Amino acid sequence: MTISPTLPLAAADRRPALVAGLSAPKGFGDATLRDGRADAIELLGGIPDPGVLPTQQLTEATARVLSRPGVPALQYSRTEGISPLREWIAEREGVPVNRIIVTNGGFHGLALAIQAVVERGDLVAVDNPIFPLFLRGLELSAAEILPVAVGPSGLDVGQLADLLRAGARPSALYTVPDFHNPTQGTLSEEGRRELVRLAEQYGFIVFADNPYRELWFSTPAAGSDVFNASEHVIHINTFTKTLGPGLRLGWAVVPEHLTRDIVALRSRQDSHSSTLVQAVVGELLTSDPGLFDATLDRARALYRNRAQTLVNALEREAPGVFDADVPDGGLFLWPRLLDNSIDADRLAADASAEGIEYQRGSFFPSGPGTDADRHLRLAYGHVSEPQLEEAAARLGRALRRQAG
Amino acid sequence: MTISPTLPLAAADRRPALVAGLSAPKGFGDATLRDGRADAIELLGGIPDPGVLPTQQLTEATARVLSRPGVPALQYSRTEGISPLREWIAEREGVPVNRIIVTNGGFHGLALAIQAVVERGDLVAVDNPIFPLFLRGLELSAAEILPVAVGPSGLDVGQLADLLRAGARPSALYTVPDFHNPTQGTLSEEGRRELVRLAEQYGFIVFADNPYRELWFSTPAAGSDVFNASEHVIHINTFTKTLGPGLRLGWAVVPEHLTRDIVALRSRQDSHSSTLVQAVVGELLTSDPGLFDATLDRARALYRNRAQTLVNALEREAPGVFDADVPDGGLFLWPRLLDNSIDADRLAADASAEGIEYQRGSFFPSGPGTDADRHLRLAYGHVSEPQLEEAAARLGRALRRQAG
Repeated sequence: MTISPTLPLAAADRRPALVAGLSAPKGFGDATLRDGRADAIELLGGIPDPGVLPTQQLTEATARVLSRPGVPALQYSRTEGISPLREWIAEREGVPVNRIIVTNGGFHGLALAIQAVVERGDLVAVDNPIFPLFLRGLELSAAEILPVAVGPSGLDVGQLADLLRAGARPSALYTVPDFHNPTQGTLSEEGRRELVRLAEQYGFIVFADNPYRELWFSTPAAGSDVFNASEHVIHINTFTKTLGPGLRLGWAVVPEHLTRDIVALRSRQDSHSSTLVQAVVGELLTSDPGLFDATLDRARALYRNRAQTLVNALEREAPGVFDADVPDGGLFLWPRLLDNSIDADRLAADASAEGIEYQRGSFFPSGPGTDADRHLRLAYGHVSEPQLEEAAARLGRALRRQAG
Repeated sequence: MTISPTLPLAAADRRPALVAGLSAPKGFGDATLRDGRADAIELLGGIPDPGVLPTQQLTEATARVLSRPGVPALQYSRTEGISPLREWIAEREGVPVNRIIVTNGGFHGLALAIQAVVERGDLVAVDNPIFPLFLRGLELSAAEILPVAVGPSGLDVGQLADLLRAGARPSALYTVPDFHNPTQGTLSEEGRRELVRLAEQYGFIVFADNPYRELWFSTPAAGSDVFNASEHVIHINTFTKTLGPGLRLGWAVVPEHLTRDIVALRSRQDSHSSTLVQAVVGELLTSDPGLFDATLDRARALYRNRAQTLVNALEREAPGVFDADVPDGGLFLWPRLLDNSIDADRLAADASAEGIEYQRGSFFPSGPGTDADRHLRLAYGHVSEPQLEEAAARLGRALRRQAG
């Protein structure tokens, strides 16, 4: 047999459907959004303040785990996660340890859930408005989406029930139950129960994405027990907002019938999360049992104060312009422009020129029917109070450009 | 519309093809293999010795990166990896930095390569014998395999050429070019050139999996330049065997035409590798430019000595039983039983009873035509010289059980 020198380059010529279906970056998270002024105040992402991360204690915990005989923190470990860490998480969640799978952060938990539950082309019900990166995650399964409204009380479970009654058959539903990103809302205890009841009745899996859960300002959100008690919920959590995104460490509470598939998948993708990071965080949490809650108390006080500062400053610098409620927790303010004559896209551009960057609300709808484009998403977690005051002043100047 | 209370549970009843195709654990890596005696000497895995990992320097590097203003090591970072680390790797590889993608270790690099290159059901040419976990990784793409013999000079590129001439059209080929796992062999410079030529001619992508590359005993293996210069090679590397598996940190040298897909995929799975681990290792490597090679020198001397110790001890405890060559590098000895009357499976069972655990050669074929079942894979990296002597003595006793 003779080989033609012009034989087509099989692999180079075509791409697997998995990667061919991944969209190019655009909109939310697009690097071009960050080409603002050098002195810009960025209210862009849900970034924890480094001042309330237990940096010194992480250093000390690292020294301890790296001085142990045989240095197990530098060796291979189990896909599910290492014992001290998993056990601490399981106790806090009130579930058996075999239901805890350690992940590389909340988004990783979502990605594993999508790949383990959603067949290619399946329908997935999602928040509307939504944390937009979840829609990129859904590209892993080329999923179709079914938007469900999110309001001041979180997911509109009644609308979901109507859609299901009308015949919609999602294989999964995605929602942020506590201190919603972007809309601040929190799903009530009753809403959680009804959501889980629908999941059990119609046979879908709820992906309850809960990164802001611990960052309540006066009282915790409705509990997670109803999620953790159901065979139809993957409850996705992370240390990202509490101990630092750079750790890349989170966990999922997984129903027993799904643990094998998720572990099998994860063991073929990256084996397990960094043993070192798991050991350090496990040591941090177990060596001083009060440390995590003390860390959270400081963070809650800081973020509560910043949220209030931002709301007050907006009212002072742009009186009557926004409908803005102080959040009950989390890292985002979602003010709505009251005057429909204000062009929200022009406002974002003018704000950028004035030196304040935020995510415009139009990035967040997953479908029609929202007023998201009349909102701004302002992330205040990592921005000092004086900078928040200045940000509000700049936003006020940007608004006056349009008025003038 | 009325809902039937017996509506089938859609998601609970069926599993996506991706996870339905993942095999249950068995054989190699099976936990039951480790149910040996409490005092068993385990020669099971390619585990680096903690004594030659730079533990103290990692502790110091952690303290430095966690004391930086704003603590960027605890924040989000880019999917491709952070700059100081990527630049160090790129310089060492002799490629532009945009071709380096930081991973959670070598297996993660393989998994990304599989998902980005291999369409579901594609044919993939693989080492025979093979590092068996790669076959599990291929389940991510439900790939068919085309075994290609591996001998003392690594992959049999001539056999591969014959298979291609006969019409085989793999989309990828997997091989360990340096200090092969399990067979010790190293692909020659000429073999590398021919392999890359075939990849370019027939349009497949070579997955060159190179975890043992730095662990040469007297001279480095043939260089990696031929791999790094080709648009048809993903060259997969890791700090696992040099700085510790528990870090979960590696990298891939990716052809430019594949970087976008791999980054897009990876950004949807776990966003990026731990910023903390990347920052710590980057600090370790750049703060003392001689440290990495000094670490490698200690590791090479230790493993060389252990390999020689094991070969000598086997010859002393079981004279004439094995054909065993001292490896040129890496962490594995692949001795062959010379006497065909010895039952290799019974030997493994007797060895376990005597208190020595190893991987039997029969776990490693990817297809017919090998004598792998007449081999033992003995991992010596993390086992002290006295323990290796004792392991050989136990193996000698196990052999005499069968002779007697």
